[in-house]
Amino acid sequence: MALKTPERYLDEIRARNVRIFYRGQRFENPVDHPVAAPAARCVAETYAAALEPDTGMAAPSPLIGEPVNVSNLLWRSREDLIARVKWERLIGRRTGRGALRSPGLDAINALAVVTHACDRTRGTGYHPRLLAFVERIQREDLAVSGAMTDVRGDRSRRPGAQADPDLFLRVVGRDAGGVVLRGAKAHQTSAIHCHEHLVLPMTCGPGEEAWAIACAVPSDAPGITHVYARQPSDSRRTEDAPLDVGLPAFGGCESLMIFDDVRVPWDRVFLCGETEHTQELVRLFGSFHRFCYGGCKVGIADVVIGAASLIARANGLGGSRTIRDKLTEMVHLNETMYACALAAAIEGRPTDAGTVIPDIALANVTKLNVTRFPFEIARLAADIAGGAMLTLPSQADLEHAELGPLVTKYLTASPEVPASERMALFRLLEFLTHGSGAVYFLHESLHGAGAPEAMRIQLRREIPLDPFEAAAHALLAR
Amino acid sequence: MALKTPERYLDEIRARNVRIFYRGQRFENPVDHPVAAPAARCVAETYAAALEPDTGMAAPSPLIGEPVNVSNLLWRSREDLIARVKWERLIGRRTGRGALRSPGLDAINALAVVTHACDRTRGTGYHPRLLAFVERIQREDLAVSGAMTDVRGDRSRRPGAQADPDLFLRVVGRDAGGVVLRGAKAHQTSAIHCHEHLVLPMTCGPGEEAWAIACAVPSDAPGITHVYARQPSDSRRTEDAPLDVGLPAFGGCESLMIFDDVRVPWDRVFLCGETEHTQELVRLFGSFHRFCYGGCKVGIADVVIGAASLIARANGLGGSRTIRDKLTEMVHLNETMYACALAAAIEGRPTDAGTVIPDIALANVTKLNVTRFPFEIARLAADIAGGAMLTLPSQADLEHAELGPLVTKYLTASPEVPASERMALFRLLEFLTHGSGAVYFLHESLHGAGAPEAMRIQLRREIPLDPFEAAAHALLAR
Amino acid sequence: MALKTPERYLDEIRARNVRIFYRGQRFENPVDHPVAAPAARCVAETYAAALEPDTGMAAPSPLIGEPVNVSNLLWRSREDLIARVKWERLIGRRTGRGALRSPGLDAINALAVVTHACDRTRGTGYHPRLLAFVERIQREDLAVSGAMTDVRGDRSRRPGAQADPDLFLRVVGRDAGGVVLRGAKAHQTSAIHCHEHLVLPMTCGPGEEAWAIACAVPSDAPGITHVYARQPSDSRRTEDAPLDVGLPAFGGCESLMIFDDVRVPWDRVFLCGETEHTQELVRLFGSFHRFCYGGCKVGIADVVIGAASLIARANGLGGSRTIRDKLTEMVHLNETMYACALAAAIEGRPTDAGTVIPDIALANVTKLNVTRFPFEIARLAADIAGGAMLTLPSQADLEHAELGPLVTKYLTASPEVPASERMALFRLLEFLTHGSGAVYFLHESLHGAGAPEAMRIQLRREIPLDPFEAAAHALLAR
Amino acid sequence: MALKTPERYLDEIRARNVRIFYRGQRFENPVDHPVAAPAARCVAETYAAALEPDTGMAAPSPLIGEPVNVSNLLWRSREDLIARVKWERLIGRRTGRGALRSPGLDAINALAVVTHACDRTRGTGYHPRLLAFVERIQREDLAVSGAMTDVRGDRSRRPGAQADPDLFLRVVGRDAGGVVLRGAKAHQTSAIHCHEHLVLPMTCGPGEEAWAIACAVPSDAPGITHVYARQPSDSRRTEDAPLDVGLPAFGGCESLMIFDDVRVPWDRVFLCGETEHTQELVRLFGSFHRFCYGGCKVGIADVVIGAASLIARANGLGGSRTIRDKLTEMVHLNETMYACALAAAIEGRPTDAGTVIPDIALANVTKLNVTRFPFEIARLAADIAGGAMLTLPSQADLEHAELGPLVTKYLTASPEVPASERMALFRLLEFLTHGSGAVYFLHESLHGAGAPEAMRIQLRREIPLDPFEAAAHALLAR
Repeated sequence: MALKTPERYLDEIRARNVRIFYRGQRFENPVDHPVAAPAARCVAETYAAALEPDTGMAAPSPLIGEPVNVSNLLWRSREDLIARVKWERLIGRRTGRGALRSPGLDAINALAVVTHACDRTRGTGYHPRLLAFVERIQREDLAVSGAMTDVRGDRSRRPGAQADPDLFLRVVGRDAGGVVLRGAKAHQTSAIHCHEHLVLPMTCGPGEEAWAIACAVPSDAPGITHVYARQPSDSRRTEDAPLDVGLPAFGGCESLMIFDDVRVPWDRVFLCGETEHTQELVRLFGSFHRFCYGGCKVGIADVVIGAASLIARANGLGGSRTIRDKLTEMVHLNETMYACALAAAIEGRPTDAGTVIPDIALANVTKLNVTRFPFEIARLAADIAGGAMLTLPSQADLEHAELGPLVTKYLTASPEVPASERMALFRLLEFLTHGSGAVYFLHESLHGAGAPEAMRIQLRREIPLDPFEAAAHALLAR
Repeated sequence: MALKTPERYLDEIRARNVRIFYRGQRFENPVDHPVAAPAARCVAETYAAALEPDTGMAAPSPLIGEPVNVSNLLWRSREDLIARVKWERLIGRRTGRGALRSPGLDAINALAVVTHACDRTRGTGYHPRLLAFVERIQREDLAVSGAMTDVRGDRSRRPGAQADPDLFLRVVGRDAGGVVLRGAKAHQTSAIHCHEHLVLPMTCGPGEEAWAIACAVPSDAPGITHVYARQPSDSRRTEDAPLDVGLPAFGGCESLMIFDDVRVPWDRVFLCGETEHTQELVRLFGSFHRFCYGGCKVGIADVVIGAASLIARANGLGGSRTIRDKLTEMVHLNETMYACALAAAIEGRPTDAGTVIPDIALANVTKLNVTRFPFEIARLAADIAGGAMLTLPSQADLEHAELGPLVTKYLTASPEVPASERMALFRLLEFLTHGSGAVYFLHESLHGAGAPEAMRIQLRREIPLDPFEAAAHALLAR
Repeated sequence: MALKTPERYLDEIRARNVRIFYRGQRFENPVDHPVAAPAARCVAETYAAALEPDTGMAAPSPLIGEPVNVSNLLWRSREDLIARVKWERLIGRRTGRGALRSPGLDAINALAVVTHACDRTRGTGYHPRLLAFVERIQREDLAVSGAMTDVRGDRSRRPGAQADPDLFLRVVGRDAGGVVLRGAKAHQTSAIHCHEHLVLPMTCGPGEEAWAIACAVPSDAPGITHVYARQPSDSRRTEDAPLDVGLPAFGGCESLMIFDDVRVPWDRVFLCGETEHTQELVRLFGSFHRFCYGGCKVGIADVVIGAASLIARANGLGGSRTIRDKLTEMVHLNETMYACALAAAIEGRPTDAGTVIPDIALANVTKLNVTRFPFEIARLAADIAGGAMLTLPSQADLEHAELGPLVTKYLTASPEVPASERMALFRLLEFLTHGSGAVYFLHESLHGAGAPEAMRIQLRREIPLDPFEAAAHALLAR
Repeated sequence: MALKTPERYLDEIRARNVRIFYRGQRFENPVDHPVAAPAARCVAETYAAALEPDTGMAAPSPLIGEPVNVSNLLWRSREDLIARVKWERLIGRRTGRGALRSPGLDAINALAVVTHACDRTRGTGYHPRLLAFVERIQREDLAVSGAMTDVRGDRSRRPGAQADPDLFLRVVGRDAGGVVLRGAKAHQTSAIHCHEHLVLPMTCGPGEEAWAIACAVPSDAPGITHVYARQPSDSRRTEDAPLDVGLPAFGGCESLMIFDDVRVPWDRVFLCGETEHTQELVRLFGSFHRFCYGGCKVGIADVVIGAASLIARANGLGGSRTIRDKLTEMVHLNETMYACALAAAIEGRPTDAGTVIPDIALANVTKLNVTRFPFEIARLAADIAGGAMLTLPSQADLEHAELGPLVTKYLTASPEVPASERMALFRLLEFLTHGSGAVYFLHESLHGAGAPEAMRIQLRREIPLDPFEAAAHALLAR
């Protein structure tokens, strides 16, 4: 069977020689370092869930004729898309973070459409190569990242107009064997925990052929360096006080992935210079990813809502009507995001490549709501929690021989909830809304797969106003 | 074929002897009176559309084995539900008002579930009676209203605790032949243009058996009187100046329907005294109707967006970025409502009665958004339109021999749009957001099928917080 | 004493020969026509209040050495400005409409600053002329309109670039006696009830001297024609059913004021061709008027809040916590608008002309909130009122011999409030939020004194970001 | 002169023997510990500013006849109140944190009113004692904390109904010398950096006399223990990487202040058992503090806006219209909060104690906006900043011999802004919105001086609806 145990996955990643710096020092490995381990466990959870019944995380793939992890699936039906929204929510709820292999999933599905179109218009042979790659990652159950976001330098300038041409990743050399890449990809979610990276270009125009490169690169390819990003309260991971961490089990990580003349053989190249296909690739990859936020962020919000509700009880206010109203509003906002993603799935359509993709307009509607509602959900959660969430003593204080009993005495609220549990709930909510979890619940919700303005631009393209104008005109003519 | 032409429908309604008062005077008939005619035409449009291809307004019914109007269809699949969202939007967009037969549709589908359950628990015979009724309305293609909302008197008191027991409609007599009804139903949308009324009870408790009555009443039954409601700017319908009306072709109407000892034979009774089934009936009928607002109000909003966009062009600001951003926001809000309804459809589930119903939680999420977004869409439309929308000269001014040229001169903005067309667009938007169309786009969005608080209460019931609390607990335990 | 009785004011206006068309017909006079009378009474109320103690509507003017109506006062202190916010609120609350002489007040205060500056830089003699004019209107207690908004034609083009040069009002002739004006001013609030119009230009640039005209024109000057605007439900004023009107006593009116070669002698001209002063004039006039909305719209909202609260009681829900929360939110939003205006007053500053003006930035902050909050207040009021507000029977139904008792029976809710009073409250709220009162509470709030974008542009000019950037830099440098 | 240098202030605090635990260990002293030092410097800044001209932080006190720090001033005029809003904003803008002596200021002003009233009704002698205390803190220029918030245990229960009576601080003994206190005060802002604590009670009823205690306690009184709260990313203060901290210079701190049988002599007691005065004390203290947030949080927001604007430039998007619109919205929201506080000041009123206090209703309106707008300002800032803010490499990475040049290369955006400065700006904004600064900009804005519900309750008390209802009734009667 293709499906791998989480343990075996972790062993494989542990064994890879990947160059990662964090706070100026190299990681021994990305699995055991206390700051990175929770993110590794989060990816591992996508392996674990696929081996469990009823999670929907394994599905049969016609490509290899057996069940594969849905993180590597080419979608063949609307049901695949609906299922995705649900398993994304499941993993989000189960980890407080989300399904870290999703960018890779979006990348293979976007490339499937675009390579097919390119082969047809250009006579290239990218699509079969891609299918071979997908077959391999399915068969070997590999974790794949999707690397599109360039560092972009001056944001008002295109790839070809930057002072430093490397500010968008580009091909700096090519020969019979393949191409050589230089540049950097920013905000690379969980890339250090993947077997493979799918490198994708941002939109390029004529004359920017060097930047129009899509390809697969193994994560231990020579020339790749990761600069592991700091996150709020990341040091708590190293302080041996899990209570203060809030969510010790899981987390996420981002890195700046630098390509210092990385060689890629031709059989791993899926686009190279065909600039006219880059916009569609960006449109599809971005929109697929926006779509998935209506599952994964909803799952995180489930945890936020649950934590807020438990804190209300711990505060002795489980029956408060004011608090109940706030919880209802949080649920309403959350289900609205979820509904948008479900709708994008059900309005999906078949592509020439034989796959099925979500409705692009509704995918962007989903994400535009996701750029707003988690912030309000977080604000309402903070409102419910009360001031203590951000003025809390530490685990060491709680466990201090002399101080501990006083901390326990004065942090006990409802007699039914021990002070230590109340503190743990505060820390969990702090983690999700002001700690490193906020990177995902709030910031990635805002900027992941593009800032709000990108959704608006896409909506204008996908939903022209002519039919609405025609409807108004028609009514005046009746 | 069961499907009827709109002309035949109008003839039938015109011929019925229904007692209707408007501003203290009886209507000759509800089809030709200038105030009521646009609402009649709106119902007629549901007949017209069913005869057209590609509208989705006719569908095969297993009950009679031929296509019926979808307004009278018992839903058998999620596809029926998805289709409903789409044809509701179509009719909304086509009329600026919506599908006036929807309450009847919701009533038969709610009764299908509840009569089936009642028969099973009580051994009653309501379900076959209902199916016979549905078969008849399908076969004869009848327009049916759904009459649930009682006038309710003191809102803080239950049916049995009112000073006047008639403030909730009730059974005041019963014999071998049937029951006698007294009371009134409020806000009866298009009831004067229907062949049949489906009377439904609001929630009743033990001791309130007299109020627990569901039955069908022909619209010309003796003892029924309608008091036709005034709407903003309704007099313009009578002033022979269609430009000032804004939307001369279509409209809606509500009436206070008074039952003054109306007899109903037993074969038309679908619930009588079984109070324990009333809450489920209210839950289903309300939620089905809330669900449909994600189609029909979205269709009206399509017209609002189209009119705002045309006005921007007429003002010479078609290319303005500020306005484009507002239009995009309007589209985004509108598609969010639509997405919620689609999601409620796709998450629908089969019932014991053999039908399929939308997801109750998501139906309420849909409507809770509908209580908010149309107001913001209307505000943005007004923002785009500019002050002239509410300070506009009249058609008579425009057509005045001496004044007309001056009005034309000074109301011309973009040279590409004649002043008269610009005025017509302003009036259309005024109609929809401040005129009698606002009754539907704004007020019915807020209160139709229950006020926002009703959705919140339902959401709390449908989405318990335990799973979210469990998720938070589980994360702390990892 | 300068102060006039409201009766005398009405007599004077009744006697003037002003050319006004409404629905294609000339008004006999603007005081007694049922559509216009409520607006006349509203202006009259500013006369009545000035004769009452404790209204703050009369204040001593150094110019004439005796008390004058504050509607004609040149502000000399911050206390004058604070007082203005308060009397605007008072009149708004007292009439449900507002102080219709405010544009004239803003005009004299804006012209005071600009004519002074122009005289200094250009050696013109406008300021003494203006003071003479102000002295006269104070001494004779005249009602003065402020007419700035041109019809503007193609909104993307400047005055000098329109297809028809008259789309901004301009000087089409000049000689020793004075100037001749042609064009039109839009949305002229209460102009038909004024003795004098103060004509002001919009922003003009070099080469647009003909449009840079400020002057005073008596309201009965030959060549002026008013096209009286229709308002939602305006016909109800003529139907002899005051209950259906909602607010029979008061109202507002707008007209399109057309200048067909109107002569103005030089001693009434306050700017003519000095284009470099027009931007400041627009800035001041607009901002003064935006400032006053934090009083007058707040006063209308007071009535909306009061009506909603009374309706809640009439519905039997006076004690509902959900409703109480909504009322509190309405109060909060309303007081926020009020607070902004008070702050603009207290941050006011003296001018070279010896007057005191409100803080321009905070005046715009006030208005930007006013473009938003009344809509939310209206939505909350509708939420509280319930569906009956827009599906209400008419006065004729209520008074009908046979029908009346039924209407009374079924519209009675709380036994403490008669059905007729409940209906009157619904109609009042309908008037303010969907009837002709909505022109003022919602539409003028949005567009009066400029659309939201105008406030944003002004805010950017008035509040540069450099000090904030410097503060951030300074913190990094510590 | 009473005014002290910041250096002398720091020396005095450094020398006090205060018992403080942080992460299970005692602080050597609260001035030099790297986690606490920035908060000490923040208090010191209130001393520094008072010695500078034009800051408004020194003002003459009639009590001692010379200038005192405004943090210890009894307000005598509306100008004092207006000045307060302005110097609060100044200090907020100057420190990114705010004026940490404000709770003490609010405490003396609230006690001035309440002790005066108590003396009059009870014949007690508290007011002269308080004046003597104020005279001393003015003369010695002492930093004073205001300690009201009890830990409160089960939030649904009153002081006298808790399982543990110490969950509200109370008098556990009294004799001729004074009283003995036991309990804890939560969220004690900067208490460890104060010379004196003003202990205030929360609302008590009959039978809860033991909890009705107000008094002054020197910060080094035996029996007091502080548990210093953890804040997001607090460990960065100890990592010797100021760039990663974001705002190395300033910060805030909270502690849980435990009173373990602390003796207080009678001449320091200002209320003891007079439960009927506690509600007014809570009302005044809370409202005064809510009022000040319209200055101090506005000052922090100034920095947030400045940082966002600089980041936009650093990203190369200084001229972007989309970003400009967001900055304008941030400014608008910020000035609205400021305006509310100014209005509360100008509507202030004299008290029987000879002081002047802000308008209580508008103070609560101010704070209710402050519970909302900073969250939206922070969201917009994050939107402008882009994803890099939360995925940034560390200072050590930037300074690493090999890695540093790559980090510099790939984090350079606009060529005009060095990568290191861009990183510093990101870290500053991260600090304010997701780091320990978020405790103040977001959390204290939400919960400080009471949660939003407290403002709503107060608004209902301060602004009865009767006058609005009367206005609606009056209009119907015209």
